[in-house]
Amino acid sequence: MRTTTGWHVEGAASPLRRGRVERRDLRPDDIAVRIDYCGVCHTDLHARRGHAGTTPLVPGHEFTGVVTEVGPDVTAFAVGDPVAVGNIVDSCGECAMCRAGQENFCRAFPTLTYGGTDRHDGSTTLGGYSREYVVREAFAYPLPPGLDPAAAAPLLCAGVTVWEPLRALGVGPDTRVAVAGLGGLGHLAVKLAVALGATTSVISRSPDKEADARRLGARGVVVSSDPARLEAARDSFDVVIDTIAAPHDRGPYLRLVAMDGTLCSLGDLGPVTVETMDLLVGRKKLSSAGSGGRPATAEMLRFCAQAGVAADVEVLPSARVNEAFDRLARGDVRYRFVLDLSDLD
Amino acid sequence: MRTTTGWHVEGAASPLRRGRVERRDLRPDDIAVRIDYCGVCHTDLHARRGHAGTTPLVPGHEFTGVVTEVGPDVTAFAVGDPVAVGNIVDSCGECAMCRAGQENFCRAFPTLTYGGTDRHDGSTTLGGYSREYVVREAFAYPLPPGLDPAAAAPLLCAGVTVWEPLRALGVGPDTRVAVAGLGGLGHLAVKLAVALGATTSVISRSPDKEADARRLGARGVVVSSDPARLEAARDSFDVVIDTIAAPHDRGPYLRLVAMDGTLCSLGDLGPVTVETMDLLVGRKKLSSAGSGGRPATAEMLRFCAQAGVAADVEVLPSARVNEAFDRLARGDVRYRFVLDLSDLD
Repeated sequence: MRTTTGWHVEGAASPLRRGRVERRDLRPDDIAVRIDYCGVCHTDLHARRGHAGTTPLVPGHEFTGVVTEVGPDVTAFAVGDPVAVGNIVDSCGECAMCRAGQENFCRAFPTLTYGGTDRHDGSTTLGGYSREYVVREAFAYPLPPGLDPAAAAPLLCAGVTVWEPLRALGVGPDTRVAVAGLGGLGHLAVKLAVALGATTSVISRSPDKEADARRLGARGVVVSSDPARLEAARDSFDVVIDTIAAPHDRGPYLRLVAMDGTLCSLGDLGPVTVETMDLLVGRKKLSSAGSGGRPATAEMLRFCAQAGVAADVEVLPSARVNEAFDRLARGDVRYRFVLDLSDLD
Repeated sequence: MRTTTGWHVEGAASPLRRGRVERRDLRPDDIAVRIDYCGVCHTDLHARRGHAGTTPLVPGHEFTGVVTEVGPDVTAFAVGDPVAVGNIVDSCGECAMCRAGQENFCRAFPTLTYGGTDRHDGSTTLGGYSREYVVREAFAYPLPPGLDPAAAAPLLCAGVTVWEPLRALGVGPDTRVAVAGLGGLGHLAVKLAVALGATTSVISRSPDKEADARRLGARGVVVSSDPARLEAARDSFDVVIDTIAAPHDRGPYLRLVAMDGTLCSLGDLGPVTVETMDLLVGRKKLSSAGSGGRPATAEMLRFCAQAGVAADVEVLPSARVNEAFDRLARGDVRYRFVLDLSDLD
């Protein structure tokens, strides 16, 4: 066993506390990663809220760093390599989804980067709010040159979560895309859709997002609180990426989708109800996406390096993690907090 | 005003009664049609059930016949031409949907063949359970040679309702299609998917549909009441056409859809609830379709004539319409009743 330092969740409403984190000794196909930057994802807030206290909880599932040690069977990495890890660190490797490179949909359920159960020793995985992580090399990605390691960290969860549906829905120069909600996921959806060549808009309740939307490359904002502007934008987007996590009526968003187009929600939102007529009129589709498989994650990183896309981040020393949590909970971030973990040395 | 004879709904539970039906005098772009055959659609049962008695109700919106008279501006039809009419007889002609040839999605709502409101004189339209209909030539279709006029009648509603989504979802030789529910819509979905070259299966609660499914060209039946057979068929269909009109859980059907595939329900089923995870795992889509636009209807008729596809029908003299209603209500038909209206002369 090896030890490092990290930030522990102590209870549903308690501040995170700095403490010792145990990591496994390297297996033959493992690498050890010195974590430099870890993004703060909404999932981390949810995890604290749902924390029962029965197992240790260290959040963090989008991080970048440097390889510090490799197991004897490792072939893709050497000590000193820049590396990135996302929200899954293992999968069965045998089911149809894994064989198709969609480990995120593994039928035996993928091993989550934190709060998951290690497939070999049954231990609970502890996340990236720590200085070191040990991971199978197959679930680590070379961080391409040219990507800022702090701004790249959120690509590993938020980035690939929007990348997969954009690619699966064929988004490119002939596509009209709208992104509902301009947060951690939404701002990356805009950047990636724009970089893919799509004509991209933002859907937001407030018109004050206009300047930011344009800065990110969007053509403008459809103000969803204004019925006249909603009506003017009816049937006009081939793809609507809905990043809104709170429960909301899909009707107004489906009415913005063009004929044969798709409204795609991100993440597990539980049961969702739609009116059949909102799908039927225009043969529209409702879909959902979340996380990414290994090939898509690697492809997304290469694309981002080439296109110069990364997250807009506010980097904080990891000792300010509780401030980041409080501000994220009230939406006070543009657009992603990233913890600098060098203060754990 | 001209008069003909037809079958009137008298109340939600009363038998239909033979009586006089008034038709408008021909406008310049109208044709008069002697109706020979009219299919009995589930919509007709619903219409009787919902009949408030405030306006006359003559059901019937999938019929074939012969042109008997043409208005002075008619160019596409001559007296004696075989002709077919479906469930819409007019639309605004100006909205984006109409301009795209999707009059079924007309933003100003299409004029329904019965129970609709005529766009010129405000009268309530009366349907095809009658010996004559007067219709704008733009909403009548030449009945191609080679199609049996009785077996072709159901193509005009049931046929195009399954044709549009099959085409929009790109069904062809490389597609794996499953059809849930083997009734009026379902049996045509199977025949059309097979004729388009797709590998086609039927999903049914009862294994006794096997022989019929194979006769229609399907490879077999996924017995949805058998968990083992459902599990074996998981993630294996690019397109699932769900023709089940009763409320039902979409989960088991979504789990049969392959990655990036679509579950398409037919018709207005009101609000539908799905679990996000049933969409997310495999990036699956939920869609809906109903009726068809003019180009798709004409294309479908040409395709059916060429491929030798028509409905499996049981033809009854129109005087037995009440027997047809009773049997349809209990699912006792393989697969569509068609009324022969020659007994109205």
